[in-house]
Amino acid sequence: MDNASEKSVEAQVITFQSHADFLKEFPKTGSDSLAGKMLRHYWHPVCLSSDLRDVPYPVRMLGEDLVAYRGLDGVVGLISDRCAHRCASLQYGQIRKDGLECSYHGWTFNTKGKCVRMPLEPEGTPQMNRAKQNWYPVEEWAGIVWTYMGPEKETPPPLPKIDILARTDGEVVVERGDFRNYSYLNFMENFVDMGHIYVLHMLAPGVVPEEVEPYCDKTVDVEWRNMIHRTFETSFGLKCVLVHNTENSDRKFVNTWSTALPSYYRFGGVTAGLPPDFTDDRRESGGILRIIDDEHFEMFRFTLFRPGNFRSTFFARASDTSRGLAEGLTGGGDRKDYDVRKYAAWEGRPPVEDLVIQESQGAIPPRHLELLGTSDVGVVLLRRIWRKSMEAVARGDKPKQVVVDENSVVKVDTFKGFAHPDEIHLGPDNMPSSEDGRGLIRDKKGALVYK
Amino acid sequence: MDNASEKSVEAQVITFQSHADFLKEFPKTGSDSLAGKMLRHYWHPVCLSSDLRDVPYPVRMLGEDLVAYRGLDGVVGLISDRCAHRCASLQYGQIRKDGLECSYHGWTFNTKGKCVRMPLEPEGTPQMNRAKQNWYPVEEWAGIVWTYMGPEKETPPPLPKIDILARTDGEVVVERGDFRNYSYLNFMENFVDMGHIYVLHMLAPGVVPEEVEPYCDKTVDVEWRNMIHRTFETSFGLKCVLVHNTENSDRKFVNTWSTALPSYYRFGGVTAGLPPDFTDDRRESGGILRIIDDEHFEMFRFTLFRPGNFRSTFFARASDTSRGLAEGLTGGGDRKDYDVRKYAAWEGRPPVEDLVIQESQGAIPPRHLELLGTSDVGVVLLRRIWRKSMEAVARGDKPKQVVVDENSVVKVDTFKGFAHPDEIHLGPDNMPSSEDGRGLIRDKKGALVYK
Amino acid sequence: MDNASEKSVEAQVITFQSHADFLKEFPKTGSDSLAGKMLRHYWHPVCLSSDLRDVPYPVRMLGEDLVAYRGLDGVVGLISDRCAHRCASLQYGQIRKDGLECSYHGWTFNTKGKCVRMPLEPEGTPQMNRAKQNWYPVEEWAGIVWTYMGPEKETPPPLPKIDILARTDGEVVVERGDFRNYSYLNFMENFVDMGHIYVLHMLAPGVVPEEVEPYCDKTVDVEWRNMIHRTFETSFGLKCVLVHNTENSDRKFVNTWSTALPSYYRFGGVTAGLPPDFTDDRRESGGILRIIDDEHFEMFRFTLFRPGNFRSTFFARASDTSRGLAEGLTGGGDRKDYDVRKYAAWEGRPPVEDLVIQESQGAIPPRHLELLGTSDVGVVLLRRIWRKSMEAVARGDKPKQVVVDENSVVKVDTFKGFAHPDEIHLGPDNMPSSEDGRGLIRDKKGALVYK
Repeated sequence: MDNASEKSVEAQVITFQSHADFLKEFPKTGSDSLAGKMLRHYWHPVCLSSDLRDVPYPVRMLGEDLVAYRGLDGVVGLISDRCAHRCASLQYGQIRKDGLECSYHGWTFNTKGKCVRMPLEPEGTPQMNRAKQNWYPVEEWAGIVWTYMGPEKETPPPLPKIDILARTDGEVVVERGDFRNYSYLNFMENFVDMGHIYVLHMLAPGVVPEEVEPYCDKTVDVEWRNMIHRTFETSFGLKCVLVHNTENSDRKFVNTWSTALPSYYRFGGVTAGLPPDFTDDRRESGGILRIIDDEHFEMFRFTLFRPGNFRSTFFARASDTSRGLAEGLTGGGDRKDYDVRKYAAWEGRPPVEDLVIQESQGAIPPRHLELLGTSDVGVVLLRRIWRKSMEAVARGDKPKQVVVDENSVVKVDTFKGFAHPDEIHLGPDNMPSSEDGRGLIRDKKGALVYK
Repeated sequence: MDNASEKSVEAQVITFQSHADFLKEFPKTGSDSLAGKMLRHYWHPVCLSSDLRDVPYPVRMLGEDLVAYRGLDGVVGLISDRCAHRCASLQYGQIRKDGLECSYHGWTFNTKGKCVRMPLEPEGTPQMNRAKQNWYPVEEWAGIVWTYMGPEKETPPPLPKIDILARTDGEVVVERGDFRNYSYLNFMENFVDMGHIYVLHMLAPGVVPEEVEPYCDKTVDVEWRNMIHRTFETSFGLKCVLVHNTENSDRKFVNTWSTALPSYYRFGGVTAGLPPDFTDDRRESGGILRIIDDEHFEMFRFTLFRPGNFRSTFFARASDTSRGLAEGLTGGGDRKDYDVRKYAAWEGRPPVEDLVIQESQGAIPPRHLELLGTSDVGVVLLRRIWRKSMEAVARGDKPKQVVVDENSVVKVDTFKGFAHPDEIHLGPDNMPSSEDGRGLIRDKKGALVYK
Repeated sequence: MDNASEKSVEAQVITFQSHADFLKEFPKTGSDSLAGKMLRHYWHPVCLSSDLRDVPYPVRMLGEDLVAYRGLDGVVGLISDRCAHRCASLQYGQIRKDGLECSYHGWTFNTKGKCVRMPLEPEGTPQMNRAKQNWYPVEEWAGIVWTYMGPEKETPPPLPKIDILARTDGEVVVERGDFRNYSYLNFMENFVDMGHIYVLHMLAPGVVPEEVEPYCDKTVDVEWRNMIHRTFETSFGLKCVLVHNTENSDRKFVNTWSTALPSYYRFGGVTAGLPPDFTDDRRESGGILRIIDDEHFEMFRFTLFRPGNFRSTFFARASDTSRGLAEGLTGGGDRKDYDVRKYAAWEGRPPVEDLVIQESQGAIPPRHLELLGTSDVGVVLLRRIWRKSMEAVARGDKPKQVVVDENSVVKVDTFKGFAHPDEIHLGPDNMPSSEDGRGLIRDKKGALVYK
């Protein structure tokens, strides 16, 4: 055993007396919690650039009430909502040339939280230097406002660029506004758990509505116990891989889902719908969670539409899965009048199915009551990474980092499609990209469109 | 003093340091409370048999979140709502041939809470025996699903059959869906308190709307201080009796109301309405409370309609007093626009009057602040029975039992009507049945219809 | 240092260990708090006389649930809401000749809380003397029902008559019904803070809408740093004074706002609007807060309209600022569809601006986090008066009294208008009344209407 791992083991013992102790700390987000301190080492999405117009934008982040605004110079500020003077909310402040002015008595704070004006106080008042508004650094990129709320806010680490948002071979659509009233970890643990897609969503490869069956490859073996299911810690976070057998022993079907720290998720490869007039449409999807507090988060969903693309109705459309989801939410069926559950007729739409199950676990699930199985390897790995990162922070170190390429892009493994066994590398490294699509979709003559 | 009562006195001292301590424990329902442990020795209604169709039915009972379902074999299960695997709610589960399947990962539990399938786990996994869902035995009888949540759930005591539901001489109508947001004891204490019907409801015998006065016997003396008001502990629970004088010293008018443990209530005898074209209509009423938790319950109301019967509008109709009650609730009058109370114009409908007063006492009334009077003997007796039962449970004994007849029927005293003084037995035994009606109602010629 | 002040200093040390301790106690209102005990030495408004008709009126006062009613003899009672018998709410009681009767069992209480009838109890029951309902003395004056909830309720101090309500030279309009969900001190501290009117409301003298500018005196210097801003403890409470320079060194413009204990506020002098057809219209305004509990209050607004008066639309009308305020609340602009704040488009209407800012400070602001400036002298003085009064009560003395004149009227300083420097007395005494108006308003020929 080398020194590093000895140190790690010791720290583990010190940090958490028991696994139950870890599980209790795990979902916390506030600055007074170890998990919250860990989360503050990463960049987080705040809002869309287009949300910032001529009025302040109130936003709760990791349990802190903040207000974002775009100054008259176009620069975005993110400061504490409660005015340092008399506790009035700066969300009702006025945007001025040199900062955000509290509407109550005119104290004006710049993007560094420094007070630059006190119109009712004498010139040269010593209060000017005493009045400090908490602030966080902000970057705008890819139509999103990002912030870093960690210990190095004067010189924050560079913003990692999320692969799909950095793409230029199609139209990227970003949508936000789907708010959830439970822990972000209910979502994250759902995402790294590939088994649920075969039960909750019944989305086995090739299992599709009757009208598109002629276009779908049916050669894939969808029996769970015949698949290889592996999960790996990676340079960006973790990934989950499923390898299916097919009718041909030289050909496997691989599905990869990836998670970059702390809350970015990416489905493997192309997730096109399958209409009868299918030609070459395809899209790629992912998203990132804005962590509001222990029991709330907001989803930012990303979709890359490429030329020739369509927006299918078979899978949930982007517009269905964001702002529209919360109202008039239904699955694929009709509500029965004797169904008294909050979500009746919820089955049939994967985003709705995930919402219902995640919410049903409780705002913060009693994880100490769980009984895990072998299919929960993704959940176990995610918790292990979180625990190691929390322990690192407890020691004064940084949590697990997100490695980026020379362009600051986070490249995550999105391999999905048919592959020869020699192509498949079951390990932490990214497999060859399947950006161009290797799939289950055939044209009208029965030929595979993506091989 | 014999040994048994000595033991009882000691236990009492040990169980509650003071009456205030008892009053604090009295309204509790959870499994961690002494009152809740006591309640778990009885059978409780869950839902109507007709509520269980092809979707699970979530139901909170005594503070526990459960889900009821009717399997494809027609057998009803009642198991804990939170899946033993990852805490998802089984109310969103799927009904299968052999149990209820969690929609998240397919773990399937039978009516004994045993896991029978884990589709994402290897054959023969040891988790199969470890995964235990809490469950309770269920019986269906009289259109109602009943459960027993006590210590002998593998071999529960027989279900007591409630008299009115066991009757075959008319149509029994059972309705549920009237939910209350206060302790079930506010209702029970209201029921065993016969004084309130002369004040809150102004329902003295013979005090009726003008249009039916010609059909009503007015010979009964309705001055409270001239009546005999007695309360008795019985083999089924307790009963309250009022004996009125009449113009004739050989004839008394008797009104009996009974309560069987823990939450069954039964009005005395016939409670027919009195329309001008009265012939021989009559009905009998009662109900049982489903105890949801400390601050919530649901009413199941029973009415027996017999041949020739009508459904009066003078007294609240069955349909008014159940599901419909919560919406657009009013008494007999119109709301005045300057009346700012939650329930304006609430007087004039007895079920509404009871609701308003019971709710106004508070979700859990501060009983230690009460000042009881002589008319509160029913309340005092009910509390004494609860306290004895709670103390028995604290000792490891069973609480007061409900004695049934050879057909497992709970026969409660429902004597109501005119009686010769010799017929009246003021004691714990049932008086002669007044099923056939002995009443205040006369025909058009002035002759008593029920004597 | 004399003995009295020594005693005071000692008491201060004993009463609060620190200023933070005082700030924590400061907003409390319950009878178990020092601040609540202090507030109980004053008279408080309960409701309008016209609110009391033929049904009881539930009203929460200083954290106590009470019910007001007008007996059949016209006399108003104010007693505890919870019946001394079985905790039913007396808001559902019946108004009888000799008191308020609980609908449950008929116990009837007179205005002194004495039980006068127990219809279900034997004659001469000892419970009759034991049943005591809490009660408070009531006075009706100026269309308002007032109560005193303090230690001398059998012989309460005389009701101070509020100046504006005692006036006979115009029509007094009293409106209530504007309920707020935050501490009454957020309002009071806003009122004694004259600086905010120059920032939040931008209501500098002479700064008016373009269409009425020709009628407005523009000679006043509205630069805050050139004004004299003083605050004084007075015989009735405190007052805030602003003195502006004008173009003429012999003429100053003075604005005075006054607060009488505990929650009466009075704007200085005439607050007329300024329509183009202005002649001699004027009105005077003020109000008093009904303190519901720590986090709620209701506003009673008073306006005196004098002959020839109009109701302007430039300033908020009386009808806009009371009952109507809570619904469809807006400021002067239109809501922008990207404005996600609770109050969008809130600017432009002073009563709305005050509501938004006061609510934004939090139900109970975290005052220990404040950083005060010189313009906060009013806030500081108000807190000092509250603290002294609380300390007096802690010693067993009375809090600061409200001095009234020979007619029991509270005369507060409302001086507003132009004045020669010799007329201005910067001290606790009232300045000459400006009832008849000395103002900024000119007629069409440019002559000052009020000098």
